[in-house]
Amino acid sequence: MSAKDADTNAGNRFTHFDADGNAVMVDVSAKETTARTATAQGRVVMQRDTLLKIKEGGFKKGDVLAVAQLAGIMAAKKTPDLIPLCHPLALSSVKVNLTLNEADSAVEIEATCKITGQTGVEMEALTAVSAAALTVYDMCKAVDKGMVIDAIQLMHKAGGKSGEYRADRPAGGRS
Amino acid sequence: MSAKDADTNAGNRFTHFDADGNAVMVDVSAKETTARTATAQGRVVMQRDTLLKIKEGGFKKGDVLAVAQLAGIMAAKKTPDLIPLCHPLALSSVKVNLTLNEADSAVEIEATCKITGQTGVEMEALTAVSAAALTVYDMCKAVDKGMVIDAIQLMHKAGGKSGEYRADRPAGGRS
Amino acid sequence: MSAKDADTNAGNRFTHFDADGNAVMVDVSAKETTARTATAQGRVVMQRDTLLKIKEGGFKKGDVLAVAQLAGIMAAKKTPDLIPLCHPLALSSVKVNLTLNEADSAVEIEATCKITGQTGVEMEALTAVSAAALTVYDMCKAVDKGMVIDAIQLMHKAGGKSGEYRADRPAGGRS
Amino acid sequence: MSAKDADTNAGNRFTHFDADGNAVMVDVSAKETTARTATAQGRVVMQRDTLLKIKEGGFKKGDVLAVAQLAGIMAAKKTPDLIPLCHPLALSSVKVNLTLNEADSAVEIEATCKITGQTGVEMEALTAVSAAALTVYDMCKAVDKGMVIDAIQLMHKAGGKSGEYRADRPAGGRS
Amino acid sequence: MSAKDADTNAGNRFTHFDADGNAVMVDVSAKETTARTATAQGRVVMQRDTLLKIKEGGFKKGDVLAVAQLAGIMAAKKTPDLIPLCHPLALSSVKVNLTLNEADSAVEIEATCKITGQTGVEMEALTAVSAAALTVYDMCKAVDKGMVIDAIQLMHKAGGKSGEYRADRPAGGRS
Amino acid sequence: MSAKDADTNAGNRFTHFDADGNAVMVDVSAKETTARTATAQGRVVMQRDTLLKIKEGGFKKGDVLAVAQLAGIMAAKKTPDLIPLCHPLALSSVKVNLTLNEADSAVEIEATCKITGQTGVEMEALTAVSAAALTVYDMCKAVDKGMVIDAIQLMHKAGGKSGEYRADRPAGGRS
Repeated sequence: MSAKDADTNAGNRFTHFDADGNAVMVDVSAKETTARTATAQGRVVMQRDTLLKIKEGGFKKGDVLAVAQLAGIMAAKKTPDLIPLCHPLALSSVKVNLTLNEADSAVEIEATCKITGQTGVEMEALTAVSAAALTVYDMCKAVDKGMVIDAIQLMHKAGGKSGEYRADRPAGGRS
Repeated sequence: MSAKDADTNAGNRFTHFDADGNAVMVDVSAKETTARTATAQGRVVMQRDTLLKIKEGGFKKGDVLAVAQLAGIMAAKKTPDLIPLCHPLALSSVKVNLTLNEADSAVEIEATCKITGQTGVEMEALTAVSAAALTVYDMCKAVDKGMVIDAIQLMHKAGGKSGEYRADRPAGGRS
Repeated sequence: MSAKDADTNAGNRFTHFDADGNAVMVDVSAKETTARTATAQGRVVMQRDTLLKIKEGGFKKGDVLAVAQLAGIMAAKKTPDLIPLCHPLALSSVKVNLTLNEADSAVEIEATCKITGQTGVEMEALTAVSAAALTVYDMCKAVDKGMVIDAIQLMHKAGGKSGEYRADRPAGGRS
Repeated sequence: MSAKDADTNAGNRFTHFDADGNAVMVDVSAKETTARTATAQGRVVMQRDTLLKIKEGGFKKGDVLAVAQLAGIMAAKKTPDLIPLCHPLALSSVKVNLTLNEADSAVEIEATCKITGQTGVEMEALTAVSAAALTVYDMCKAVDKGMVIDAIQLMHKAGGKSGEYRADRPAGGRS
Repeated sequence: MSAKDADTNAGNRFTHFDADGNAVMVDVSAKETTARTATAQGRVVMQRDTLLKIKEGGFKKGDVLAVAQLAGIMAAKKTPDLIPLCHPLALSSVKVNLTLNEADSAVEIEATCKITGQTGVEMEALTAVSAAALTVYDMCKAVDKGMVIDAIQLMHKAGGKSGEYRADRPAGGRS
Repeated sequence: MSAKDADTNAGNRFTHFDADGNAVMVDVSAKETTARTATAQGRVVMQRDTLLKIKEGGFKKGDVLAVAQLAGIMAAKKTPDLIPLCHPLALSSVKVNLTLNEADSAVEIEATCKITGQTGVEMEALTAVSAAALTVYDMCKAVDKGMVIDAIQLMHKAGGKSGEYRADRPAGGRS
């Protein structure tokens, strides 16, 4: 399958299977090397008390977010180990940001990845968000087992033949 | 900090920080070795067309789910690599199940992990669900970039001193 | 050692040792960046009953091959972790194919890897075949411990200064 | 599925699929913890000149074998990363031995793994042999691209309910 | 080699080679399962200005130490991946502590690991210290390339047949 | 933050934090792709008897150094897994050399890494030295627990906007 075909048909079929239905790591060798970026979001919804504990809970407030942020950055680098058909990539930038949304009683997470390469970095951004969310869960689970990881989605993507993508609005009722 | 203290206080503080506020991999060496199990759920909400393509889309229907299922199993084994303060564990069982929920236009994911050990396997079950969800996203993103990974949560947990936990009901409006 | 010397002498000495006999990851920084491809083959010889069980054994025939195929793709990405002196590479394509050879009572495996880079991908293709073969063994060993992994070899290689290579014929008596 | 059922039926079906045909990491939590050992063999068949170069080739003869031996030991520890449905294990011993068989113009490889645990270590021994063989190929490929990795098989297995297994004789015509 | 022999002779030979001089992962299967602990130390010596920047440098002082501490904890889990002949272990506790020694213009690092198992955790504690030190270097190298990682050593070890070990005094002139 | 700013300000602040104090994997996407090299050194100081055992100790002298050298090469490839904010890199060369310094009763280690890329390879060289030193410790600890890993530092760095760096002299009193 040529890269041209892949892009032409991307809108109506799955590119991770070949003509015989076998899973493949898509051949990107004919694709253009361009600057690519992707931003993903997600959140961890929790009890108000848990959120306050993260915010105010003592001499070292913020540490839950700092550990989760680092976990997100490191996970972006492990994406090809986790997602079977992802290409190994030499990421040029990873940023992960966590903020407390008191109105929704949620920790909100945003990750942006960049590369100059032949394939996009959506999965790296989504993986960073997921790992940061799991780490928030891990660190707070002793006080709140009912937390929900929610609304993980691609917000923006640029670079590459398929052009720019921007999500209409965050999922999960976020304003 | 003794394991007894950890369990006693688990309800009102974060166990992943010591008295000085430093992050630690919690000392479980004094905890009892018991049979432990955890089940987590989550889902990927998508366009109806995407779901139908997974279901009916040709000679090899089901493959998206099969690849995602395997990704979930393998990711459970990588949990201590991804979640900074998780203990390395010798899991005795991992099961991941994906089903199509046509009413909600979602792929639903459930993972159950087991161990006979000194610490629980919630994070392994949640990580398996997350990786399976990310893999569904990866395999379908050429036709639907707006998919949302949603409602990842712990459903059930048994074994260990803190006793059994069961979520009231699935998040995300699932019936 | 310059890349030129390395290529000139490649025919009569091992490039993975320097002049003092120390193991090295060969310096490829002066080599040309070109499109490179490599194809490897191998097979798992088993009892006829085992092969039939893979082929006909119930409602989900083919799954052994699907799991092994995915294992092969993922292993290609881990080659630099497994083979001590291999370079870390950003593979642009990995394809793994498994077929049933009933005449020889064997599962046959073929893997093709591609890269645009400074070093070849033979080891990635051979590693993909090996991991797929090991996975076939793992999944069938409950019914047949006597399976033999056989005839793993490089079939074709192109790109780079050393030129094209093509094996005369498959090993192991394959027609 | 109980471990008892698994053992009872192991002779006539694949244990890596559940009743619905989904791949699973088999539940071993009800299995007995016993001392287990497994030995695997394999070989790399090459041109006589390549073998002689390994044997006599200068000031540091033996190094190809030393690097491959270490690669085998390290790969045994990575088995659960490579083989999708293998359990993570705390191996208590790994030994890998490589010898030159001049009569057959082959490097012969043998690996033995041990554990006290609930599941066998066949895959660890086979993976060690495979990685050692791939490393021999990698280190000699500059002088001999036609080498064949051959006759990888389980030779002996002890411990666990299924009892002792011993291969009749090495494959590949080895005396 | 029996575990008894290994312990008897540990004082006068290297246990990582067998009778033929081959590297082995030492067989610990006959060793007793006991509670084991190990503590290691080390430090990063730097310019006074660099140390002050870590200490006072703005709105988020302490973050260099927090990132390095987490890196140390995660690296302890990767020890069997890094040190070729180390056993894979299920650590029950990892603690890493970093403090500023203004008198010596150094960041001092201490790590303690625990396990209930058949082999010691010295290498895990030393690896945690090394990775934390490397991370301090990484985060500060833009302002000070001349930092020196120094005085990494085992301070204390308990559990197992060889008994307790305690270093006389820290190396590197620390009081 | 633009790459230009990063380089301009590198002398007086930490580049691994953004304007809000969050840890980031620095954005190198605007940096020039150039040939880069870095050399690091370190040593393991030990009892004279331990050094002599490495040097003369029998039929396979030198093996401790050979295993440690390989561990260093493999660890260089794992740098982005170990150091949280390091970029994943496609190294083009890794060389690790260990020599016995009888005068100082130390094993001396030097590692050189190369890449053609957008970021330097200091951390890869320092990580290779650290892992080689840890492996020397691991292999000799049965006879000498008091060994000290010492004087790990960057010796030379070239390529990239910040220009060449050369350490004045080795630390630790080496002549």
